[in-house]
Amino acid sequence: MNRSAVLHIPMSQYAFAEAEDRFVIRLRAQKGDLDNCVLFYGDRACTASPVQFTKIAMERRYQDELYDFYEAVLAPCPVRICYYFELVKGEETVYYYADAFHHDLPDLIMSDGYVVEGRSEYYQYPYIMRAEVQSLPQWFQEAVVYNIFPDSFADGAESLSGISKEVAGADGRVSKSRLGGTIRGITENLGYICGLGFNCLYLNPVFRAGEYHKYDILDYFHVDPCMGTDEDFRALVEAVHARGMHIIIDGVFNHCSWYFPQFTDVVEKGEASVYRDWFYELSFPVRRPDEEEKPEYACFAYERKMPKLNTANLQVQEYFAEVGRYWVEHFHVDGWRLDVANEVDKNFWRRFRMAVREADSEAVLIGEVWENAEVWLRGDMFDSVMNYDFRKHCRDFFALQKTGEDGFAWGMTDMYLRYPNQVSRGQLNLLDSHDVPRFYSLCGEDYERWQAAFLCLCMAPGVPSVFYGDERRISGLRENEYRSAMPWERGCMEARDFVKKAINIRKTWIEPCAEWVVNVADAQENLLVFERVGTKRVRVLIHRGGDKKNVETFLSGGKILLQERMEGRCLCRNGFAVCLFE
Amino acid sequence: MNRSAVLHIPMSQYAFAEAEDRFVIRLRAQKGDLDNCVLFYGDRACTASPVQFTKIAMERRYQDELYDFYEAVLAPCPVRICYYFELVKGEETVYYYADAFHHDLPDLIMSDGYVVEGRSEYYQYPYIMRAEVQSLPQWFQEAVVYNIFPDSFADGAESLSGISKEVAGADGRVSKSRLGGTIRGITENLGYICGLGFNCLYLNPVFRAGEYHKYDILDYFHVDPCMGTDEDFRALVEAVHARGMHIIIDGVFNHCSWYFPQFTDVVEKGEASVYRDWFYELSFPVRRPDEEEKPEYACFAYERKMPKLNTANLQVQEYFAEVGRYWVEHFHVDGWRLDVANEVDKNFWRRFRMAVREADSEAVLIGEVWENAEVWLRGDMFDSVMNYDFRKHCRDFFALQKTGEDGFAWGMTDMYLRYPNQVSRGQLNLLDSHDVPRFYSLCGEDYERWQAAFLCLCMAPGVPSVFYGDERRISGLRENEYRSAMPWERGCMEARDFVKKAINIRKTWIEPCAEWVVNVADAQENLLVFERVGTKRVRVLIHRGGDKKNVETFLSGGKILLQERMEGRCLCRNGFAVCLFE
Repeated sequence: MNRSAVLHIPMSQYAFAEAEDRFVIRLRAQKGDLDNCVLFYGDRACTASPVQFTKIAMERRYQDELYDFYEAVLAPCPVRICYYFELVKGEETVYYYADAFHHDLPDLIMSDGYVVEGRSEYYQYPYIMRAEVQSLPQWFQEAVVYNIFPDSFADGAESLSGISKEVAGADGRVSKSRLGGTIRGITENLGYICGLGFNCLYLNPVFRAGEYHKYDILDYFHVDPCMGTDEDFRALVEAVHARGMHIIIDGVFNHCSWYFPQFTDVVEKGEASVYRDWFYELSFPVRRPDEEEKPEYACFAYERKMPKLNTANLQVQEYFAEVGRYWVEHFHVDGWRLDVANEVDKNFWRRFRMAVREADSEAVLIGEVWENAEVWLRGDMFDSVMNYDFRKHCRDFFALQKTGEDGFAWGMTDMYLRYPNQVSRGQLNLLDSHDVPRFYSLCGEDYERWQAAFLCLCMAPGVPSVFYGDERRISGLRENEYRSAMPWERGCMEARDFVKKAINIRKTWIEPCAEWVVNVADAQENLLVFERVGTKRVRVLIHRGGDKKNVETFLSGGKILLQERMEGRCLCRNGFAVCLFE
Repeated sequence: MNRSAVLHIPMSQYAFAEAEDRFVIRLRAQKGDLDNCVLFYGDRACTASPVQFTKIAMERRYQDELYDFYEAVLAPCPVRICYYFELVKGEETVYYYADAFHHDLPDLIMSDGYVVEGRSEYYQYPYIMRAEVQSLPQWFQEAVVYNIFPDSFADGAESLSGISKEVAGADGRVSKSRLGGTIRGITENLGYICGLGFNCLYLNPVFRAGEYHKYDILDYFHVDPCMGTDEDFRALVEAVHARGMHIIIDGVFNHCSWYFPQFTDVVEKGEASVYRDWFYELSFPVRRPDEEEKPEYACFAYERKMPKLNTANLQVQEYFAEVGRYWVEHFHVDGWRLDVANEVDKNFWRRFRMAVREADSEAVLIGEVWENAEVWLRGDMFDSVMNYDFRKHCRDFFALQKTGEDGFAWGMTDMYLRYPNQVSRGQLNLLDSHDVPRFYSLCGEDYERWQAAFLCLCMAPGVPSVFYGDERRISGLRENEYRSAMPWERGCMEARDFVKKAINIRKTWIEPCAEWVVNVADAQENLLVFERVGTKRVRVLIHRGGDKKNVETFLSGGKILLQERMEGRCLCRNGFAVCLFE
């Protein structure tokens, strides 16, 4: 047995409650190494001594390149669980608990027969607390998100002037627009968005700020004057809700504009400012430095115009918790996407969450965390993060073709297993955003490969998020390009029809809470095969390109219950299908 | 290369800030597998593209049975870190990042030479936030704790009546005492405790409760009438502080007595009670059931007289945060030990921590968590937990002799590495508590083995906690025995002198923040060897019993700088030494 490959982490993605009465336990071992893996679990508070255990075989449920992942689902389960594993390879049988291999259980039997209990030495899940079982609002599980970079989108029905402008406020601070997009422009195109099948908007920042991208905020309580008014925004939210859609906005709380009034106060009053502790690493006197100078304060990256807020400061926490509450309570936005979330104090987010959830218990919080975000997804901060790793795996498989079907499946498996199931299923999957090259360009503008990736986005576990204009084949590797004006004039009906149909298939066939199952042995050249298993069992086949004969072969191997879904595979020349098998 | 053994977990005990300008990165590999392990780290926000990395060799710093643990310390370090590893075995060289092995770095160079940055794909430590760097109050790092079970300790100077009593309150509820210990009894024996070298008390519960053990609390704002008055307690705290000592009390917030007024209200008023949501899994009507009946509420274990509080309820959180604040602010206790901490809502603890720390920024919070407590030790809940695993490793080595020197060293290594260094050094190590058999009894009352374990307790990383009477050789495997009356009449001068000397050596030679270093190759039969490395480098030798010739051999092998410390090894017949080597 390769003991060094065995891994279990209690109270983690290896041991979590999916519901109060449903508990999942996983163990990792070297691929192909174990002959058998058995779970023993009991009530850690049981009055019998020693603890009485129930034995259950663990199923080899997932694989990646190196490992097998064994899983047992306890449903129902004790509310207080202790457990250990029995691992078998050939003649070798060993118990695994307390992160160590043992030949016996931890109870001590004394010479007089008295049993000194060892139950505390097993793995423990102390108590499945109702309030701590993570879950997502139903609406978000069902969301298909259209992500709009407002300046680049529209200022009228299917139109955008593309004309830059500047608006000065009463305080003399200027707000800029590059392409002229407005809030009303979004409202006027809700029919278009809704018509494609999207049921949720996520807007990049809309609050009053300096630069066109609006990430340097001057006023967290008002809409940017280039984009419109607070009332325009209210009308947008109402129109969104009237269509049964939802709307998520962008919160930029790691930093602000260097003309944010509280920062100006510090520049003007120095150490006497009541906001002196609102900024990180401030030293006095504070000036707004020239480009070559080093600022006397920490910044977002090294951007001197964006001073970093001291988010550990309780006053700062309170101020922004109020911002969070304000837009949810008074404008009824349905959630926040939170910028640079990984550089903000964690208690800031805990407080923010409480304020927002108090205003709307169904509001969703999505952090911008590009890396493994397990730290932020334990239930006390975010419900979801922007899942750039989904994009990475798609890029390497569909666009760059660096990985094969097996590598893609393994990468997706690791991604799925790094959080509890219900958290994985709530990740905001994306191919594009305002911060990365268009996926279409990474595909070398090979439309078929982009289509295959898009279909994967729609069928995989997680909430799909589509950056505006993907449905009109916006391309671009550089920032100005991938944030370019929505090409309203461009026809591209084929792409729009494809997006619409793919979203429709998702909404019809993919249950958000369906598990994700992949069997690498199913894979054939250029052909991805995975299943989504909920009340329905849906098999998804996606072909990356090249010879499609293996698609036919694969399809002929199973009894297809819903032949009419086969039309799906005519949607794109690459060939894909969403089929219901027995 | 055994790739399946390689482990790194970002933002964990494998990657943590010890200080704002000191960052520790670890990687685990199969023991003896790698020829070389190199860390590349950079500023993840650096303006150069791609990121410029600094290369640093990682040291093979720790070992356990299966693994090598490589470590690099970055001091100073960037405030925003990205990093990856280069692993070498023979001809095989591979990069490790994003939990996967790679042959290249993630930057993409496009056909026109444009670089699409891959920096987000490395391991990340987003920002070393000052407020999130974990640290312990200095006083607690230096603490040597005497743990008193008040009912069993004293009611006068070196005396305890041993007489049980019952006191009825105005509400008719009876408080019981089994052996008659009082708060004043503790105050009158501070000289004794202090004389042994202890500088901190930890008291099991002292609030008004029913049973003698006081874990079924009736009133969180008053001292139990059997034990004395609130003023007695105030006098105790003042006397403790007058001696430069500190005091920690026991908080029981998972459950209460079934005669706790709020529970009584629910029994009396049913669903009309304002406290109807204060208890977990309550169903109406609520009665106090007979012994055979199943209660209509969740309990501590299955103890019907201790209903479980609904600690996710914000009102309950507020009430107990006030309890936490009250005793710190008005009585100046220095910290809380928190009972059944792992079954309480985590936001309860976050709120409790904030309230207590607001009252005293140096107050310490210690959770009762027997298992790996990483979940609770991330800086938002507890500073420390009762370290029963320390006891387990000592039990298996010193008492039961199930493990050898190597097994003990490996177990201690794993224990040390499971939290960031500064957290490991703040664990409340113990051999005994009110909940486990006396270690002396587990040693079969072999005093020499107990001594060796006690010395280990004093020298190991962590804060030693000694259960009352260990210095008078209290024995017992069963609850009534190990909580038995302090044997004031018993001479036992040898044990007391030993305890006193061992604590003195600790306070003189062991810097609390000293690292823990063990080289299993140093181990010889029955001989433990480890080092504590701070500004001084102290080598500790502990002999478990048997032939002591190897002690002499070992000592003659190094140049001993401080010969006078050698007297230490005469303290116990087993032979041990604390030596300062070059």
